[in-house]
Amino acid sequence: MDFEKGIGEELYDLAGKIFPICRSITGDGVRETLRILNEYLGKDGLSFEITEVPSGSKVLDWTVPKEWRIRDAYVADESGKRVIDFQKNNLHVVGYSLPMDEWLNKEELGKIIYTQKDQPDVIPYVTSYYKERSGFCISQKDWDALPEQKYHVVIDSELFDGSLTYADLVIPGVSEKEILITSYTCHPSMANNECSGPVLLVALARYVNSLKDRQYTYRFVLNPETIGSITYLSRNLEHLKKNVIAGVVLSCVGDDHHYSMIASRYANTLADKAFETILCDKENYEYYSFLKRGSDERQYNAPGIELPVVGFCRSKYGEFPEYHTSADNMSYVSAKGFEGSFEVMKDWINCLEWNGYYRMTVLGEPQLGKKGLYPTVSQKGSYDGVMAMMNLITYCDGRNDLFDLSDLIDVAPQELIPIVQKLLEHGLLEKIDRE
Amino acid sequence: MDFEKGIGEELYDLAGKIFPICRSITGDGVRETLRILNEYLGKDGLSFEITEVPSGSKVLDWTVPKEWRIRDAYVADESGKRVIDFQKNNLHVVGYSLPMDEWLNKEELGKIIYTQKDQPDVIPYVTSYYKERSGFCISQKDWDALPEQKYHVVIDSELFDGSLTYADLVIPGVSEKEILITSYTCHPSMANNECSGPVLLVALARYVNSLKDRQYTYRFVLNPETIGSITYLSRNLEHLKKNVIAGVVLSCVGDDHHYSMIASRYANTLADKAFETILCDKENYEYYSFLKRGSDERQYNAPGIELPVVGFCRSKYGEFPEYHTSADNMSYVSAKGFEGSFEVMKDWINCLEWNGYYRMTVLGEPQLGKKGLYPTVSQKGSYDGVMAMMNLITYCDGRNDLFDLSDLIDVAPQELIPIVQKLLEHGLLEKIDRE
Amino acid sequence: MDFEKGIGEELYDLAGKIFPICRSITGDGVRETLRILNEYLGKDGLSFEITEVPSGSKVLDWTVPKEWRIRDAYVADESGKRVIDFQKNNLHVVGYSLPMDEWLNKEELGKIIYTQKDQPDVIPYVTSYYKERSGFCISQKDWDALPEQKYHVVIDSELFDGSLTYADLVIPGVSEKEILITSYTCHPSMANNECSGPVLLVALARYVNSLKDRQYTYRFVLNPETIGSITYLSRNLEHLKKNVIAGVVLSCVGDDHHYSMIASRYANTLADKAFETILCDKENYEYYSFLKRGSDERQYNAPGIELPVVGFCRSKYGEFPEYHTSADNMSYVSAKGFEGSFEVMKDWINCLEWNGYYRMTVLGEPQLGKKGLYPTVSQKGSYDGVMAMMNLITYCDGRNDLFDLSDLIDVAPQELIPIVQKLLEHGLLEKIDRE
Repeated sequence: MDFEKGIGEELYDLAGKIFPICRSITGDGVRETLRILNEYLGKDGLSFEITEVPSGSKVLDWTVPKEWRIRDAYVADESGKRVIDFQKNNLHVVGYSLPMDEWLNKEELGKIIYTQKDQPDVIPYVTSYYKERSGFCISQKDWDALPEQKYHVVIDSELFDGSLTYADLVIPGVSEKEILITSYTCHPSMANNECSGPVLLVALARYVNSLKDRQYTYRFVLNPETIGSITYLSRNLEHLKKNVIAGVVLSCVGDDHHYSMIASRYANTLADKAFETILCDKENYEYYSFLKRGSDERQYNAPGIELPVVGFCRSKYGEFPEYHTSADNMSYVSAKGFEGSFEVMKDWINCLEWNGYYRMTVLGEPQLGKKGLYPTVSQKGSYDGVMAMMNLITYCDGRNDLFDLSDLIDVAPQELIPIVQKLLEHGLLEKIDRE
Repeated sequence: MDFEKGIGEELYDLAGKIFPICRSITGDGVRETLRILNEYLGKDGLSFEITEVPSGSKVLDWTVPKEWRIRDAYVADESGKRVIDFQKNNLHVVGYSLPMDEWLNKEELGKIIYTQKDQPDVIPYVTSYYKERSGFCISQKDWDALPEQKYHVVIDSELFDGSLTYADLVIPGVSEKEILITSYTCHPSMANNECSGPVLLVALARYVNSLKDRQYTYRFVLNPETIGSITYLSRNLEHLKKNVIAGVVLSCVGDDHHYSMIASRYANTLADKAFETILCDKENYEYYSFLKRGSDERQYNAPGIELPVVGFCRSKYGEFPEYHTSADNMSYVSAKGFEGSFEVMKDWINCLEWNGYYRMTVLGEPQLGKKGLYPTVSQKGSYDGVMAMMNLITYCDGRNDLFDLSDLIDVAPQELIPIVQKLLEHGLLEKIDRE
Repeated sequence: MDFEKGIGEELYDLAGKIFPICRSITGDGVRETLRILNEYLGKDGLSFEITEVPSGSKVLDWTVPKEWRIRDAYVADESGKRVIDFQKNNLHVVGYSLPMDEWLNKEELGKIIYTQKDQPDVIPYVTSYYKERSGFCISQKDWDALPEQKYHVVIDSELFDGSLTYADLVIPGVSEKEILITSYTCHPSMANNECSGPVLLVALARYVNSLKDRQYTYRFVLNPETIGSITYLSRNLEHLKKNVIAGVVLSCVGDDHHYSMIASRYANTLADKAFETILCDKENYEYYSFLKRGSDERQYNAPGIELPVVGFCRSKYGEFPEYHTSADNMSYVSAKGFEGSFEVMKDWINCLEWNGYYRMTVLGEPQLGKKGLYPTVSQKGSYDGVMAMMNLITYCDGRNDLFDLSDLIDVAPQELIPIVQKLLEHGLLEKIDRE
């Protein structure tokens, strides 16, 4: 895995490539996005497997909807000038809008206009997947400025029996047990939510592929939010329930504000433990309970599904003002933001890889001095540099995994890995089945 | 169940009717009180069963004492003027005082006088059930004002082999499992402690009687505090231990200050859970550990008894200055106070009735939009109104009862009942035996 | 057990007797110290059993080192005047220094000089047990004042195949289950750390010996820190693991600042519970997690050893500036300090002796008034004096030991002992095997 630039810049550029595409829960925007991401994976010889699921298919309690295709949409004034133009910003059209071609006065037009009253400068992101509607979204300011007159309102779209598109890629490890990493590809031109997640996901796939002697199998999944994950679950549930030991939904991972995790339903999975111990010492860390969920961790944690899946974000969706508006553009995300997310996810993957129950091979505290692991002169202060190792040793009794050890001795789990490696090398430690 | 006025006023008036009666742990005051309460129950065709237990009966480690009868008592000065008069306030005589008829000087009189030195204006409430004594209670101020002279000290009372009186009423439900609601009838003229508890109790009996398809059997018990509950337990322990799933002692429920609960011994019963989740969001809620107990929850939680019984109060006994003094009169309680207590107890009963383990009938999150339970337009903020339902659904996995659900999603359990009803109606939820 | 003076003064004086001796992890200093302590034990006919373990013996992962003997050491200036003199303070020589006799200039001398730069007035305590070195310790101030010249550097010491010396004393009780009390004898002239621990230990041995009908067997152990406890464990591990139910390392118990405990590895042993409940209400109490360990609780809690051993200190080692310097002298400790430690340890021993699961013999709350244990007049406030007893009774259901009871009712365990005694006398309580 070679990055031509820094990983942050590389991901920022890749996000910029997929940003302009008009995506929805179905359609060619999704397919074009996956083509670009596959191109990036191809640098290491990887590629997603793409699956098309026909409209009308039953998936758990849901039905795959018709496919939506949109070619153009605008509102033009009496002079023919486009005052709202889908070509300028694909957020202007309510997702899944039916076709229309009508002349409306301002009052009539107002009934199909959506604005964000508390943020008068932005175009809101609005969809109506499961009830047939037509609608336009514009800023409150622009709406207020439109004069009373007749407007030509055109949406050149169609809803037809097509298919829903999802992508997955499985990179095998020693064990059949799986780590699930997923994000979604159904949002149109918004950068953090959600060009960032898919872009980070493909970089992580390349990173995982570069790990020699991987312990776990890694499953990378991209699908449209909600209906896509429900579709994926309906087709893979048995396998996932049997194998997935930890999973994460990546969303809003491109800005450089704080780090956020959204806990799983009972906040008690390995995925939770790993993120919490990695993130808890960071200054800019926000923990959200499952009550604050909102992305596909909803589906992965739903009753009867109950997979160990959490959410990882920088600024959490729903919590930053730019969320679900035209202000979530490429200036809201940054190379620095992507890089921070990539580093945390690398730590998460490495900690899971190194996780296990460790036990000392000697009875009592080992004589570390003769192994060069301990100061030979004793004066007060001389042991400060070895306390993390001494603390790790004392709790390596076969009852604690790497994350328990991190909690017990208050050292981040990624910082324990080199100590574990050193003790393993000296034959002082062994990895065991849990006592 | 029809209330002629508001429930608060109705209970205030009923408390006023029993307030003047001189009650003690035995005697005609108790019987007259129960007669008036039975009259009130009779409006819905209900009535207490009255039991008389002879003096000298062994009850657990205790013995039922003699019955006490008092006709008159006074201290008169040399001119014959009554300076302390039982006819004016029955708190003036120490409960269970032996008869006497003597002339005493002020110093001699002082030896049988009880005052509340830290509250010089009030008459304290004093009893001596288990050691034979005679005594008078007056305010410190009045005592200080009495001149040195001879006083004629008369108590026209008797202690005789009679009986202790208690009352119970069982209203059956579908299940033999019981909810126990109890209060006590041994306090003379004090309003909150304890005319309020018996009065609320009979109103609740009428309310329970009005509930169609009651799940549980309800047992309403009125007896003298301590010796009465011990007597009741000695005669019903096996049945109660087998059937009671939750119980509450009502005491001081007539004022309109905060709400209080006194936890059971280990604070871990269904009765605790129900009160805590109902009360915890109220601004004016005070939680008291079992160390602060003092009423009959003492006996119901005693070693070997160990019934799941908590205490419910407005201002907790022992914690308000008027407690156990003549200042606890009808102006300390109010219609508003009674109404608040009645509403909390209704919530408690309803939540117990609706309590159970619920499980979703569909796998994964249901498609609520097509059932009209979910917004069809998606814009940020559009889901705020359905979050309680979404959160309930996600934790309805058969592992949580109504109170666990309330804790998990931070919504009061009484507010969950209509949501549960709606989901049951749509066939999305089922009540199951605990997983 | 008769103390000629107050126990505090007695222990202060005894500490003063052993203070001047130059101890190390082996050698005649240890033997002389044990001889003096045995003399003190002898007042009650007790004495330590002394064990010598030959150099080179394998003990767990360690090897018993050579014995160190030192007769004299000094640095003399060109005039022959001793500018550093072991005879004045035995901290001047690095523990286990090899013999030397050389002329060095100041720069050369500097390479074997240890100072405490952040405390320029004190001589630091430095050792090098497991790597052969020679060295001197002086105050930074004195070092800076030494002029440039030639110095005669002499250490008259030897390292030879001798033995490591430890001492133990077992005082049997009714049960074979043991309480372990240990401290160490390897520090030269420092008062709190560690003349105080051994001195308190022998006083406690005399105290335990004075207890009639002791429940437990008590094991008192003095050895050199780390290598000594490892040696002791290597020879007694099976017996200790089978029998020890609670243990404590005494260190720095002679000053009169706060009280400290160092928790065991998981803070979940009987030794922890006992100290925590005894100390938690003291104003000047500091709790240290096992991460702050540093004395022999390290070895007793090491993986595979896992004995229930905590640490007890006044000012905790490593936390006071005088620690491991010449400022830890006889003016840092005091009679008052020793007395406080002795009283806490007496409480700890007594609470362990009285610990057990208690259950009421009567069903329900007993009628305490007829036994003279309860006020016969009831007025508000009249029960304050019996609340501890009433609370104890209510939780004496066979599920709680003395320390659980202390936690539950928020009364120190040593204060519960007289109440338990009174209830046992009245036949209201029985000690049972845990329910």
